[in-house]
Amino acid sequence: MPIIEMHMLEGRTVEQKHRVAAAVTKAVSESLNCSPETVRILITEHGSEEFYVAGLTKSQRAALQEQGQ
Amino acid sequence: MPIIEMHMLEGRTVEQKHRVAAAVTKAVSESLNCSPETVRILITEHGSEEFYVAGLTKSQRAALQEQGQ
Amino acid sequence: MPIIEMHMLEGRTVEQKHRVAAAVTKAVSESLNCSPETVRILITEHGSEEFYVAGLTKSQRAALQEQGQ
Amino acid sequence: MPIIEMHMLEGRTVEQKHRVAAAVTKAVSESLNCSPETVRILITEHGSEEFYVAGLTKSQRAALQEQGQ
Amino acid sequence: MPIIEMHMLEGRTVEQKHRVAAAVTKAVSESLNCSPETVRILITEHGSEEFYVAGLTKSQRAALQEQGQ
Amino acid sequence: MPIIEMHMLEGRTVEQKHRVAAAVTKAVSESLNCSPETVRILITEHGSEEFYVAGLTKSQRAALQEQGQ
Repeated sequence: MPIIEMHMLEGRTVEQKHRVAAAVTKAVSESLNCSPETVRILITEHGSEEFYVAGLTKSQRAALQEQGQ
Repeated sequence: MPIIEMHMLEGRTVEQKHRVAAAVTKAVSESLNCSPETVRILITEHGSEEFYVAGLTKSQRAALQEQGQ
Repeated sequence: MPIIEMHMLEGRTVEQKHRVAAAVTKAVSESLNCSPETVRILITEHGSEEFYVAGLTKSQRAALQEQGQ
Repeated sequence: MPIIEMHMLEGRTVEQKHRVAAAVTKAVSESLNCSPETVRILITEHGSEEFYVAGLTKSQRAALQEQGQ
Repeated sequence: MPIIEMHMLEGRTVEQKHRVAAAVTKAVSESLNCSPETVRILITEHGSEEFYVAGLTKSQRAALQEQGQ
Repeated sequence: MPIIEMHMLEGRTVEQKHRVAAAVTKAVSESLNCSPETVRILITEHGSEEFYVAGLTKSQRAALQEQGQ
């Protein structure tokens, strides 16, 4: 360990995934004083219809705001 | 929080996902007395070959039942 | 399925857990039109030092607000 | 329960998934002395750009080794 | 990978945990033809009030059955 | 999102948890160019008997090495 599962919305580039995985590994190993080799990262992507805040997707929320609600 | 991860078989429509996310958000906020804005829902879909009960997929189980086992 | 993992802060009563599990099961089975018997719910509790928004716990955030930051 | 989530790299065949699910179900039910019917397995697949050890994917690591680093 | 998270009810002995982890590691490495060294297992325990089938805990269900419901 | 679940062995201090959560939030928001307010971190702790590599806990592995295996 540590084993880190990162839930993200679909759409990030391979380059962004590489960058965030390297940055998080560095952050974890430095702040927990453990070897980078012990840090594993899993990225799990979710489509735009698979993430909800207050029961709404981002686009549902934007549509409501447009209707002035 | 609460943060809720819902594992479901692939195949639900966008409309069903919207409906279940709204219904679960309402159920959680009312029963835990917390604001809907604090409730996040992640849907993680699994293919039919990625969910097993007693070591069998739904179609493996159906095939066995057809063979009378 | 569906299998639902609910991440919540420690401190809810048994009665609240019973109530939210029953309400979420009803919400899921009605909105996805599946039998309640297929719905499994796992509650995973986290201590107050195990949940962060913008890198801060609830109490860290409250302390900053008190200092007018 | 037990409910088991298996994170794996994309690319296994359906036959391999069937085999590992049956083998793990048997291993769990025998070692925990519980009925196979109580054992549920979820397989979550990750693309090659979604799994990192020491901040690197398998192919990034191979490229570095080729460069003699 | 594979990384395997096993959700189980509290109450298993250390010996049972050792036994199931060894058995699942063997089952996975043999059926997926991967080295045991690549197999990581996380056990996450849940209290009896943290696992629900059809909205009920095991003891709620037993109580209902006693009342003949 | 992103929502990040960090699995760690029990035993880290509150200060270490604060430090790693702040560092990971910074790493994620900078590398994915998203606001820190959108980054949520869940820490899930596991006891020493709940994490296995190649079917062994850290202490089982150390015991085997002592016996020269």
